[in-house]
Amino acid sequence: MEKIIKITSHQNPNIKQVIKLKKRRERNLSSLFLIEGYRELKRAVDAQEEIVALFYSPSHFLKSNEQSLIDQIKSNGGDTFECAKFIFEKISYRDRPDGLLAISRQRKKPLAELEKILSSKKNPFLLIAEKIEKPGNLGTILRSSDAVGVDAVIVCDSCTDVYNPNVVRASVGTLFTVPVIEGTSEEIFALLKKYKVSILAATPSAENIFTEVDMKGSVAITVGSEQYGLSDFWMQESDILVNIPMNGVADSLNVATATTILLYEVVRQRKTS
Amino acid sequence: MEKIIKITSHQNPNIKQVIKLKKRRERNLSSLFLIEGYRELKRAVDAQEEIVALFYSPSHFLKSNEQSLIDQIKSNGGDTFECAKFIFEKISYRDRPDGLLAISRQRKKPLAELEKILSSKKNPFLLIAEKIEKPGNLGTILRSSDAVGVDAVIVCDSCTDVYNPNVVRASVGTLFTVPVIEGTSEEIFALLKKYKVSILAATPSAENIFTEVDMKGSVAITVGSEQYGLSDFWMQESDILVNIPMNGVADSLNVATATTILLYEVVRQRKTS
Repeated sequence: MEKIIKITSHQNPNIKQVIKLKKRRERNLSSLFLIEGYRELKRAVDAQEEIVALFYSPSHFLKSNEQSLIDQIKSNGGDTFECAKFIFEKISYRDRPDGLLAISRQRKKPLAELEKILSSKKNPFLLIAEKIEKPGNLGTILRSSDAVGVDAVIVCDSCTDVYNPNVVRASVGTLFTVPVIEGTSEEIFALLKKYKVSILAATPSAENIFTEVDMKGSVAITVGSEQYGLSDFWMQESDILVNIPMNGVADSLNVATATTILLYEVVRQRKTS
Repeated sequence: MEKIIKITSHQNPNIKQVIKLKKRRERNLSSLFLIEGYRELKRAVDAQEEIVALFYSPSHFLKSNEQSLIDQIKSNGGDTFECAKFIFEKISYRDRPDGLLAISRQRKKPLAELEKILSSKKNPFLLIAEKIEKPGNLGTILRSSDAVGVDAVIVCDSCTDVYNPNVVRASVGTLFTVPVIEGTSEEIFALLKKYKVSILAATPSAENIFTEVDMKGSVAITVGSEQYGLSDFWMQESDILVNIPMNGVADSLNVATATTILLYEVVRQRKTS
């Protein structure tokens, strides 16, 4: 009979590693990160992410399909550990834990991936997210990018680690399905120029409303940090400046919502063209 | 010379009250709530919200316009208390405190306010947010609602207290500028019917894409909870069902981003009509 290893101590070295991986430094050093939740983990497994170790707590399970996911991870070569309820609650970072949390290996896409996309697509549709600070916003941007079907999300000069647990959570696992490429602004810009991709930025001072400019061709939508907006670099290098009408007292939108309305405008225009 | 009261003890009863007001129960009992940050507080003062007490910490100030806001609050009859740095850090709920935090009085708008809007506006533009769970999402929805200039945001069967500090923060103070009306689904629905407002809901099973249905007339956009979506009640009572194209693996968007793209579609259609 198969032996199930059950963890009942906080001192277990695997549990200690999970807790360490909540810190960016440890994620950088180890090239590992955490994935919590059935939906996120299922998307990771479907996207062939490597699950190094899975920690599960049957008393937290919400449905009945957890076991098949556990079996799938095991058959892919991942270690699986049943945890006592109180242990799982210690490692979980969710309000409503569903009993599944894994350590996975980071799989960063090199810049060459972007060149591959740019050289093969007729009208590439890219999103450039520069210096986003809040993991929840970066995750939401990934979720919207998945929804509209961008060819890649490019994370420039990142403030937030894309492997932060809250990015994974807010992305509902789309971190594993959208091609995410990291780079410096300069190297990304050089590639966009080489492939003649139009760079679009939103700024209140632009003359044209975002729904009135052509986004049907190759386009890279650029969005910047919550506090400072897009950097001068991208603002100056943009080919198309648009404004998003602001009819109230606030002078800006949340960055993830602003990104999403620009992304869906591309979808609307391409659909009706 | 004017005497400045400086708080240097955690045991100060005003400090204790601030900490209590982080809890919903205490906010409900007292009808008070917290506003932190220059931008939020300035919008509250401009919107003539009653500031009961202001706590400030000059060593946290970021700019030079704090003093005039303090003076304005004082001249409106609010108590003002200078706090020692470590005291302010105890009461602040922000990552980057800017040295201003106030207790304000809740000012709930009665349902009659909605009737006033419906009876006076030609094509009312409403947002109905039902059972939103996360304060950050509700605040972001308010921020977007301000941006598009809705006539009112109606919070139905609320899970999240609109006076939660994180709603105030994510709304960047638009909580004070957008008319926010709370009510039960039944009473709100009765009013919408009486004034023949079209109710619009997004659902993946709808035939029409949201950009292809007419939103130029009177419209109430309805959005539901993060986990369960819109309730059967609103889904069944909706006059217009639309879908938001989902081209990736995820089957839904973050609720605040979905709300925002629907809101901006109304703006686009009304602008070009």
